[in-house]
Amino acid sequence: MRMVDLIAKKRDGQILTTPEIQFIIDGYTDGSIPDYQMSALLMAIYLKGMTDPEIATLAKSMLDSGEKLDLSMIPGIKVDKHSTGGVGDEISIPLAPLVAAAGAKNPMISGRGLGHTGGTLDKLESIPNFNVDQTTEHFIDEVQEHGTAIVSASKDVAPADRKIYALRDVTSTVESIPLIASSIMSKKIASGTNALVLDVKTGNGAFMKNEAQAKKLAETLVAIGKQNDVPCVAFLTDMNQPLGYAIGNALEIKESIDVLKGEGPEDVTELTLVLGAEMLILAGIAKDTATAREILEAKIADGSALQAFKQLIIDQGGDPSVVDDPTKLPQALSTLDITAKEAGYVSAMQTNELGLASMKIGGGRAKKEDLVDPAVGIMLHKKIGDKIAVGEPLATLYLNAPAPQEVQDQVLNSFTISAEAPELPELIHEIVR
Amino acid sequence: MRMVDLIAKKRDGQILTTPEIQFIIDGYTDGSIPDYQMSALLMAIYLKGMTDPEIATLAKSMLDSGEKLDLSMIPGIKVDKHSTGGVGDEISIPLAPLVAAAGAKNPMISGRGLGHTGGTLDKLESIPNFNVDQTTEHFIDEVQEHGTAIVSASKDVAPADRKIYALRDVTSTVESIPLIASSIMSKKIASGTNALVLDVKTGNGAFMKNEAQAKKLAETLVAIGKQNDVPCVAFLTDMNQPLGYAIGNALEIKESIDVLKGEGPEDVTELTLVLGAEMLILAGIAKDTATAREILEAKIADGSALQAFKQLIIDQGGDPSVVDDPTKLPQALSTLDITAKEAGYVSAMQTNELGLASMKIGGGRAKKEDLVDPAVGIMLHKKIGDKIAVGEPLATLYLNAPAPQEVQDQVLNSFTISAEAPELPELIHEIVR
Repeated sequence: MRMVDLIAKKRDGQILTTPEIQFIIDGYTDGSIPDYQMSALLMAIYLKGMTDPEIATLAKSMLDSGEKLDLSMIPGIKVDKHSTGGVGDEISIPLAPLVAAAGAKNPMISGRGLGHTGGTLDKLESIPNFNVDQTTEHFIDEVQEHGTAIVSASKDVAPADRKIYALRDVTSTVESIPLIASSIMSKKIASGTNALVLDVKTGNGAFMKNEAQAKKLAETLVAIGKQNDVPCVAFLTDMNQPLGYAIGNALEIKESIDVLKGEGPEDVTELTLVLGAEMLILAGIAKDTATAREILEAKIADGSALQAFKQLIIDQGGDPSVVDDPTKLPQALSTLDITAKEAGYVSAMQTNELGLASMKIGGGRAKKEDLVDPAVGIMLHKKIGDKIAVGEPLATLYLNAPAPQEVQDQVLNSFTISAEAPELPELIHEIVR
Repeated sequence: MRMVDLIAKKRDGQILTTPEIQFIIDGYTDGSIPDYQMSALLMAIYLKGMTDPEIATLAKSMLDSGEKLDLSMIPGIKVDKHSTGGVGDEISIPLAPLVAAAGAKNPMISGRGLGHTGGTLDKLESIPNFNVDQTTEHFIDEVQEHGTAIVSASKDVAPADRKIYALRDVTSTVESIPLIASSIMSKKIASGTNALVLDVKTGNGAFMKNEAQAKKLAETLVAIGKQNDVPCVAFLTDMNQPLGYAIGNALEIKESIDVLKGEGPEDVTELTLVLGAEMLILAGIAKDTATAREILEAKIADGSALQAFKQLIIDQGGDPSVVDDPTKLPQALSTLDITAKEAGYVSAMQTNELGLASMKIGGGRAKKEDLVDPAVGIMLHKKIGDKIAVGEPLATLYLNAPAPQEVQDQVLNSFTISAEAPELPELIHEIVR
């Protein structure tokens, strides 16, 4: 078998067989297939696509490329959650302690931010001394004893994914359903979860801007899970505006604490409850959504969800006093209000642009090597449907350096103001099982 | 400017600007753009194409990537010929001395064979001591004094093409009109020719199997020439059967000598005259095809074309006595006839398969590093339209090792035998000016 022939096959829109896909993944993992052949194949996959069986084989080969975490010593069904990424999407942070408080076992493998999206690990690291790199032993102990842990993927888990992901990032082959789906599922399944709730974002702040494409991705993810005996439920959720009001690392931790106190923004709270309820059902803790939701609401009301978050921080070396005193989180040196130039209703938001603006003031990464400033970001004051007067603040920038005029304009121009009140977007577009 | 953004642009079918294409070629030539990004771009170009202006810019950037040969000290119009490659296509070898004998200045830059096609340089090297690697000074002197030289491209000429060509070969991005056209034209123009006759092959032995694609390539080549003040004429010629009867290096040298003696196969002789006549017209030596043809026929008849071939061999260090005694060329140890199993007429030939069969017995290269055996190959006895009886030889293999049964079958199966006499294919399909 020769890689050059397999590239030609996919280039011509043909279907790669199971042994061919295994040859590619094994060869790329062990270095016998060079980057320049893999990148040509990735572009061919991007442009010609893959069938569902090809994608399933690709995910399986990638998950077989390294170590698989054995979490069988943790009793019961382990359930994780994955989001395809958006702006202001800190859901994992209130969600993990909440479902843990409700008795679920949630071994959460998370990632870092890139481009317009933030990453759960970056957000957690704004908590002083919080350590996302844990040994497998510690990870297992933490989930077993306290129900959850949020860590980075082990380097030994799905090494093919790690290598392919890095190559996709520099060869403009990121937004491809076969490549996104196999990347997510290989890493999650190899990390030992038994079930998975997927939050597939759709809208102008998502990677998948097209709803049909997002739905296809959701279906592909669920199908891969099924083939690997990992039941998955995918939610297509709205990313036509940021989630909540906070965009930025420490700012989103603060908002997460609010959610766990029962004082969070409506959309973040709602999505946390919806995804959490499905996790409880998959874990066998609740029979239906209504019961699951009641359990979760009770865990917020009685403070046990907040307590579970403190425990998570303690377990990973962080300072839990930030929960009671969020001013202990990194604070920006200055703030700058972005005020409306016209009156009316916010009728649309350029979510992607808001994410990029936060990135440019230091809240995110343009390149993987960039450092993230935990303190900076954007607090929104208005979202879609809100009324606004001239001179009223639309958003506040949290800054450690003067904000370039270009960024201020970018934030201002991210808001579309209309005379008429717009229809409000639905948070949950669809459920794929 | 970032390469990753330019890859995305082409991936999405957008048009790259002149500064963008220059950035890519300069960056890839100086090593600041890595192979893995270039190969992703090549695949995007393969699948999304390029506009004519993009291709012209690509060719120009590639020809500007290195040294340009200045042949202005050779008086008059220098004219070269290029073939896109086929099976048994040794036309360059009788053509160069023939046009030189007629007074043209022909600085010929040639290539090596790969896959099912042979290369002019490999064929010439079957002449003992013939040296295709000459200094620029020697090359110029030879063309100036004796009208022609056939050499490999200088490493300093169009280095971007050399690097890109090597990458295309291992990433299945060879058969792309923008990439083929820019490769041919950058190398030829940078090598200093003032005019160019192009032989674009079409049919089952050509790289471009589809005639419409071949025509598009011919038009693209001619357009690039025009934009760079290098007048070009392209002939779309038939490659649905090998040219002549010989496939193999020394075998094709022998057939070339026959052409120069006026005893060559009809198709090789005809194509040599047609392309040569156009070269004389472009060089200003003849006003029209009829006159040009008369001149060339006279140069064959009076022996001066054959004499020019001897001179070419002497100039490049080879043994010219092979011209009078072709048994001094490398000889195979044994021969094996492939005989017909049914009677009728040869109605079609799998030209590509015959090229591959010759490659497999040592006459060509599967990989660039492979060595070529000059003595081996295939002599055809029958071509399209010929009558054949059961047991009569279709072809003879010239061997230095036993021929695998698979190769024998491949040669036999390359001939389609029909009860009815077929229509004969036209040698020249079309002329593009």
